[in-house]
Amino acid sequence: MSFESLPYTLRWVEDILYVIDQTKLPEQFIEVPLRNIDDVYVAIKTLQVRGAPAIGVAGAYGLCICAQKYLNDSPNMFMQNLGNDAKYLNSARPTAVNLSWAIKRVMKRLYGCVQFTTEQMYGEILDEATKIHQEDLITCRQIGEHGRDLIQEGFGILTHCNAGSLATSRLGTATAPMYLAQEQKKRFKVYADETRPLCQGSKLTAWELQRAGIDVTLICDDMAASVMASGRIQLVIVGADRVAANGDTANKIGTLGVAIMAKHFGIPFYVAIPTSTLDIQSACGHDIEIEQRGKDEVCFFGEKRTAPVDIQVLNPAFDVTPSYLVTGFITEKGIVKPPYEKNLKAILK
Amino acid sequence: MSFESLPYTLRWVEDILYVIDQTKLPEQFIEVPLRNIDDVYVAIKTLQVRGAPAIGVAGAYGLCICAQKYLNDSPNMFMQNLGNDAKYLNSARPTAVNLSWAIKRVMKRLYGCVQFTTEQMYGEILDEATKIHQEDLITCRQIGEHGRDLIQEGFGILTHCNAGSLATSRLGTATAPMYLAQEQKKRFKVYADETRPLCQGSKLTAWELQRAGIDVTLICDDMAASVMASGRIQLVIVGADRVAANGDTANKIGTLGVAIMAKHFGIPFYVAIPTSTLDIQSACGHDIEIEQRGKDEVCFFGEKRTAPVDIQVLNPAFDVTPSYLVTGFITEKGIVKPPYEKNLKAILK
Repeated sequence: MSFESLPYTLRWVEDILYVIDQTKLPEQFIEVPLRNIDDVYVAIKTLQVRGAPAIGVAGAYGLCICAQKYLNDSPNMFMQNLGNDAKYLNSARPTAVNLSWAIKRVMKRLYGCVQFTTEQMYGEILDEATKIHQEDLITCRQIGEHGRDLIQEGFGILTHCNAGSLATSRLGTATAPMYLAQEQKKRFKVYADETRPLCQGSKLTAWELQRAGIDVTLICDDMAASVMASGRIQLVIVGADRVAANGDTANKIGTLGVAIMAKHFGIPFYVAIPTSTLDIQSACGHDIEIEQRGKDEVCFFGEKRTAPVDIQVLNPAFDVTPSYLVTGFITEKGIVKPPYEKNLKAILK
Repeated sequence: MSFESLPYTLRWVEDILYVIDQTKLPEQFIEVPLRNIDDVYVAIKTLQVRGAPAIGVAGAYGLCICAQKYLNDSPNMFMQNLGNDAKYLNSARPTAVNLSWAIKRVMKRLYGCVQFTTEQMYGEILDEATKIHQEDLITCRQIGEHGRDLIQEGFGILTHCNAGSLATSRLGTATAPMYLAQEQKKRFKVYADETRPLCQGSKLTAWELQRAGIDVTLICDDMAASVMASGRIQLVIVGADRVAANGDTANKIGTLGVAIMAKHFGIPFYVAIPTSTLDIQSACGHDIEIEQRGKDEVCFFGEKRTAPVDIQVLNPAFDVTPSYLVTGFITEKGIVKPPYEKNLKAILK
């Protein structure tokens, strides 16, 4: 088995977008067809498709789905209707930078197309969506190629949350080095943090690594230190939602704790990202706002209440790992080492 | 409100032992009456009563419950039947040191009573069980008195798992300094780690602190670093299951991670224990065996599967925090500071 057995997170087949319904994993593997704007909106809104790169691709193809309804309209009406749909799709996850980025990029493609027929315009946006999809596939592969040499025979690797194949078009960011090291026939083990409260580690990361035939072990978040102390971990790789100019890294809540523990045990801590995750406008981690989410994610397991009524809860969705805890960034352009202020800027050129 | 609103974990009323059914918390507060040996066995076995000191008290009173059936027997038969019941009760949680310790202590009380009537013998063991109960109440109070001065006005305190009132006769070990600081009208906040996989933090610690009117906030285990980084935490207090001669501390899984993070942020990390938790026979943490528990605790939330079928799981119940991460031990005899090898031995004298 290898990553070849991994499904594509998104597929464009005969003018329909299929996405893996990630809300059903790990119990059921279902691809849902998205045939109209409501399907696309709901898929993004309800996290059937999630992960920054995957959401971007879904938004781009999603706009093409919307456009199919307007193929008999005049080019002007086509543009106008599509503009409205773009706004609506964007509102499915307003804070997801990749969604608005991809939708904008597809719409921009139409700017120079005033003389085009409606059909030609549809051809343009479908081509742009396909490009976004292809670029993401290539980026993940390149992250994997740059990162796989960090993995040595017999290593144990810890990861947190899901920066996996499911969060991208395929292969993932943090997982790409693992899939490509497996391709090289290296033997290694992965330890996946459960990642409370939403359990992306147990529901998604454990699922996809197991499916690809990688030796994966699930642990609760509070077991990471114990597993490190036992000598099982030689490498940590996580993803990131946003990296500031100085290398401070916003990622899923819990990443900071993992980084501190890795430092304590002298274990290298890498962050795998496409360079599009670099936010050079943010000088450092203090500039990154942390989303606080609702209480119920923490207080209920499914329908069952596990905490007292009216208990106070903190539920930050992300934390910020200061750059001095990061051994390096694995990007599609290579591995970036400190000093980050200088070297992250350089890689963007 | 204060700890006065906390219920007693165990109550002996009119020859019946009542225990709070901790498997029903936080949804329902129910006291179950234990009227015969099967009731006692089931209560201990199914964790209706849990926490080392509380189990000890339950075992001691439990033996008295057993004895009530033999009050019309000859003293010899009384002894013999009780001996058999003691073995059976012990098997409810064979690895719980406090259970066998308490049962042995009650049985030992009968050694010098060869001339006693059966009724007198029953009086002896009930007196011994009552003593064990009273001693635990006093020990917790003393831990609280020694520890409360560590808590300053405006502090945020992090705790992990439940070393609380529910784990003892009342007041708890890690929580005793909090309850007694509250009695002094100090204002402070407590952050309770959820403590996966069994969630003693959300189900028990959050419940009892809230009930006593302490300002408590629930967080997932992987949020601890973020909450520390935000400046909210000035003190960590946890309990322990076993402390080796050099101060290495076995406690609920996740404690080690909290200790490492506390060190990273320069936050004092205290362990609250009765001196009976000191295991001078174990030279250091390497000598402490770590129980591995079943997969289902990690893979299911209630009935709902949250991890793939056949996934590999590690589920260590405890971890060992090396003594150099411990700022001090809060005991009923005072606070013990390094060097632990010397000072822990001294306090036992």
